[in-house]
Amino acid sequence: MNQTILLKSRPQGTPQLSDFEFQKEAENLEITDGEILLETKYISVDPYLRGRMSDAKSYVPPFNLNEPISSGIVAQVKASKNNDFKEGDFVSGLLNWKTEQISNGQGLTKVSADLAPLSAYLGVLGMTGLTAFLGLQEIGKPKAGETLLVSGAAGAVGSVVGQLGKILGLRVVGIAGTDEKVALLKNDFGFDEVINYNTTPDMAKAIQDTCPDGVDVYFDNVGGPISDAALFSINRFARIIICGAISVYNKTELPTGLSVQPFLVKNSALMQGFIVSNYAEKFPEAIKQLSQWLSKDQLTYTETIVEGFENTPQAFLDLFSGKNKGKMIVKI
Amino acid sequence: MNQTILLKSRPQGTPQLSDFEFQKEAENLEITDGEILLETKYISVDPYLRGRMSDAKSYVPPFNLNEPISSGIVAQVKASKNNDFKEGDFVSGLLNWKTEQISNGQGLTKVSADLAPLSAYLGVLGMTGLTAFLGLQEIGKPKAGETLLVSGAAGAVGSVVGQLGKILGLRVVGIAGTDEKVALLKNDFGFDEVINYNTTPDMAKAIQDTCPDGVDVYFDNVGGPISDAALFSINRFARIIICGAISVYNKTELPTGLSVQPFLVKNSALMQGFIVSNYAEKFPEAIKQLSQWLSKDQLTYTETIVEGFENTPQAFLDLFSGKNKGKMIVKI
Repeated sequence: MNQTILLKSRPQGTPQLSDFEFQKEAENLEITDGEILLETKYISVDPYLRGRMSDAKSYVPPFNLNEPISSGIVAQVKASKNNDFKEGDFVSGLLNWKTEQISNGQGLTKVSADLAPLSAYLGVLGMTGLTAFLGLQEIGKPKAGETLLVSGAAGAVGSVVGQLGKILGLRVVGIAGTDEKVALLKNDFGFDEVINYNTTPDMAKAIQDTCPDGVDVYFDNVGGPISDAALFSINRFARIIICGAISVYNKTELPTGLSVQPFLVKNSALMQGFIVSNYAEKFPEAIKQLSQWLSKDQLTYTETIVEGFENTPQAFLDLFSGKNKGKMIVKI
Repeated sequence: MNQTILLKSRPQGTPQLSDFEFQKEAENLEITDGEILLETKYISVDPYLRGRMSDAKSYVPPFNLNEPISSGIVAQVKASKNNDFKEGDFVSGLLNWKTEQISNGQGLTKVSADLAPLSAYLGVLGMTGLTAFLGLQEIGKPKAGETLLVSGAAGAVGSVVGQLGKILGLRVVGIAGTDEKVALLKNDFGFDEVINYNTTPDMAKAIQDTCPDGVDVYFDNVGGPISDAALFSINRFARIIICGAISVYNKTELPTGLSVQPFLVKNSALMQGFIVSNYAEKFPEAIKQLSQWLSKDQLTYTETIVEGFENTPQAFLDLFSGKNKGKMIVKI
């Protein structure tokens, strides 16, 4: 019996389990010419999906109510009437939260279980790695010797950003929310300094102390008061990559904070919103580069793997309380 | 008797006349080899000078207490022992608020009273015009058919920005503070629409109404609530030039407002602080282009000219209550 997770209601503030609905369908999964039947293996849950659950104008259209949610998925081909795919192949792409589904193959990429663990194609070799690499390169324009500050540093994107900063010769300072994450980032990911924002009373001072030469590149995954605090340390010509604002995604009122304009004009600094899909033409080269670093062990990653299709909504909710270390993935 | 205006005290909040001190000096104005004696003709007063009156870290060093204030000045050579300048020449450059002063000529540009009125070299052919042109070009990257929103539109920079937008084929919407300014911008400067922020209760709606296709380029001279309101109309890939924040320069506490990050990330939008001196290598070409438009009457300008050296501090203070239309200049 095929299972599907639908969006039942648009979350008000923090999403609840009751915003999701499970459906068992006796769907006709007979494929016709050009189609493939896919069995879901790994589902990526990501903070940006929260935006698609609202009906506000954004860079991706909102999910429809009572229709399946979709996200990055690795699936295996169970049956094929498409010459590009054969039974047993693994593919990754934007697919529906279903245990089985039919596709015409468009937008899917074949991936190899020999080159990397399959879940990596949803993380360091998928949108996560591409977001980290292209956001840092295209907006951050990092130069060896500069200081890189990363918020949400223990998250999927942040932990890759920090490692890329080290590979490129920058001093890297992270911000995370538990001592365990701080230790992980320092010991396993090579961050120079990490600040625990939950135990630090004065974030502006802590950033100044850990970034004595100021901040040249700020990779911002969180927004809110942490990002306000970072403004006091930005250098002349600083580049601020706005990659996410997880701290405010569940707010029902528009968030307020320090006006950034005076800081930007004083420092001739740049702040730019980054959405990875705008850089699709750079994906192949970026994945090649990330694979090389991964194979040489210059790049490592952590995953939080939750087992069971039925736990997908909870895994998504746990992102907002910071329960994940690195990429959050559901294994079916 | 040579007169000088000194910075007597660092303004707390809005500057006061008592922050300035006049000094009459029986200074030795004898020039030696390589020097010229200059008589001040026109003094530029600019909002950015407020920043230099504080001792906070910024892109230009603060003025010293009990020393002369300096700004853009057009002066005439009264005597010369420098082969590059002869008696009667006019020069423009960063000079002190003095009726007469000695210079070695470094950093001064000879200007011609035949090509344009001398005061224009402090405005449309000076820092004002360069700020408008290079800010719009280098950060705004305007494309014909796009919508340009300009705050502080009746100010020195804003009124040039709007005209440049029209020359380049954009729809131009301005924001100004009196009906007289609104009429001037529409009738004399060719703005498509102008909003009077003092009589408009809902700025976000007014911007949405006057920019039905959204805002592609926002040239921001003011900061504060007006700039917050503009965020609701920015388009995908919008460029926001932070040129000034006159609404907050006199605040003694750090200004707060809407968090811009969610708007930037939703729209892949860019916000960048602009300081004209970072683009010095582009000045000659920019002045050439501006002169051409000026000579063809494609570009016009307004000045508010205050007479008398002794009125320089008051002219500066009047910038913050919006008493000027276009460039504020003191004629000696």
